[in-house]
Amino acid sequence: MTASESVDGYEARVRDSFGRQTFMTSIGARLTRVEPGHVEIELPYRPDLCQQHGFFHGGVPSSIADTAGGYAGFSLFPPESAPLTVEFKINLLAPARGEKLIAIGDVLKPGRTLTISELKVFAIANGERTLCATGLHTVICLQGRPDDIKPT
Amino acid sequence: MTASESVDGYEARVRDSFGRQTFMTSIGARLTRVEPGHVEIELPYRPDLCQQHGFFHGGVPSSIADTAGGYAGFSLFPPESAPLTVEFKINLLAPARGEKLIAIGDVLKPGRTLTISELKVFAIANGERTLCATGLHTVICLQGRPDDIKPT
Amino acid sequence: MTASESVDGYEARVRDSFGRQTFMTSIGARLTRVEPGHVEIELPYRPDLCQQHGFFHGGVPSSIADTAGGYAGFSLFPPESAPLTVEFKINLLAPARGEKLIAIGDVLKPGRTLTISELKVFAIANGERTLCATGLHTVICLQGRPDDIKPT
Amino acid sequence: MTASESVDGYEARVRDSFGRQTFMTSIGARLTRVEPGHVEIELPYRPDLCQQHGFFHGGVPSSIADTAGGYAGFSLFPPESAPLTVEFKINLLAPARGEKLIAIGDVLKPGRTLTISELKVFAIANGERTLCATGLHTVICLQGRPDDIKPT
Repeated sequence: MTASESVDGYEARVRDSFGRQTFMTSIGARLTRVEPGHVEIELPYRPDLCQQHGFFHGGVPSSIADTAGGYAGFSLFPPESAPLTVEFKINLLAPARGEKLIAIGDVLKPGRTLTISELKVFAIANGERTLCATGLHTVICLQGRPDDIKPT
Repeated sequence: MTASESVDGYEARVRDSFGRQTFMTSIGARLTRVEPGHVEIELPYRPDLCQQHGFFHGGVPSSIADTAGGYAGFSLFPPESAPLTVEFKINLLAPARGEKLIAIGDVLKPGRTLTISELKVFAIANGERTLCATGLHTVICLQGRPDDIKPT
Repeated sequence: MTASESVDGYEARVRDSFGRQTFMTSIGARLTRVEPGHVEIELPYRPDLCQQHGFFHGGVPSSIADTAGGYAGFSLFPPESAPLTVEFKINLLAPARGEKLIAIGDVLKPGRTLTISELKVFAIANGERTLCATGLHTVICLQGRPDDIKPT
Repeated sequence: MTASESVDGYEARVRDSFGRQTFMTSIGARLTRVEPGHVEIELPYRPDLCQQHGFFHGGVPSSIADTAGGYAGFSLFPPESAPLTVEFKINLLAPARGEKLIAIGDVLKPGRTLTISELKVFAIANGERTLCATGLHTVICLQGRPDDIKPT
């Protein structure tokens, strides 16, 4: 993706939508980078986000990766549209341990209806970065249905 | 699966492990049913678990479905072993809206190393049940590594 | 799905489209059952369809399962439309050995744009049926683009 | 992966195993590149490998991608072991049209038991290369079970 393929105001639209996702706020996720077709989300460690061994629960990297994939797609959508995740698949490659997770969504194939992204999640432990999850994500563009209008 | 294929104490092991998953507690998930190869998890609606339109964030059904799949497998594992999710794939079929989610993990193929489960998530809105997500889940059995001992 | 939800002529449209899939003919696959939202494909064993141990190559059950999923969806599409597989995921649960494979595609969630199906593949060995693969499949409905007109 | 991480004779083992896959021979697939953790397979167009619109049937890129992923993993396995695909997921991004397909399997995470690879399939049309499929693949290493001994 290049900036020229994106639509004016994409970053504001993504940031605004992310800000309305209460689940992202609840778990402490932050949108750290928004470029056309590329989104990064960071999440600091918290003891209330763990599985039984004290690592991040697999649902946590999965949730921020899903969000990164959806917004990577949304960054390329036209105004007056909304993203809806169709499906995703994720392989948990290594325990998600450490002080922080970074999820990256990268558009592989943009489309008028469907956009497919690659997902990567890195765990940062003692400053060292390990790929802890990888996935694929499909998002659908709901046209003529602005993202910031609550459905009834 | 039949009860006779399961190992004594499976329910206590699953409930104990679930109880140590702080993320499940944080989001208000409850383990409502544990049978050999079958686990159900319920999650009441909370406004802090939402995406931008006020429905459950896709990461929430995904997280409880992942947990249900992992423990459906774990219910069939021998003592002195631990479950680790290898991968899962989920299709979000309908908005996860309503007063409650119910995630079900059902073992399709148990194995000494890998166990594959089917995932279903239902959204209950005004008492009516809608299939809102379906998935497939692979968990690995870590032998000789009791689940309740914290790794170093 | 019930027959009443389907559109007149669905079976002829599915059988006609299947008949134009030269790959299905090449590997000896036959469309054995077409109902609204449900398609079955059978494939007799042939020594030229194997992996290195003499079982069916994993690509064979995957290919007929993909086809069964696509046509299960197509059976519910309106006339003047064509199916295109968006993605699928498959778990190979047991060696695909025996005299025959049966792939089943069952629609879980029909939709105007996307239709999601469950995939199952059974291997029949000495008359006994084993679930050898399970999957999930997403197909998109290309509207206003009849399936039997060759694109340019 | 670096060559030093691989085991002597990996290329011969991969090529020998591929040569015993009758399905790969039947469809005209050739193993064009074998490096530690990286395998490429090419497949020239043939009119008997098509779906209803005259493009490659989705099962064809899926089958060679599955094979590329499995052998990318196998190239890193110890001697006296065999690969078995656990699962894969593939997104079909564009019609697989043109004179040739190239499937690439790249190991993302090697492991003693499970190895996860990234799959890419390119379609070459008039010499131009288009990414037509992307996927993720999990293969299990069967230890102490040489790949070239036929199971009973």
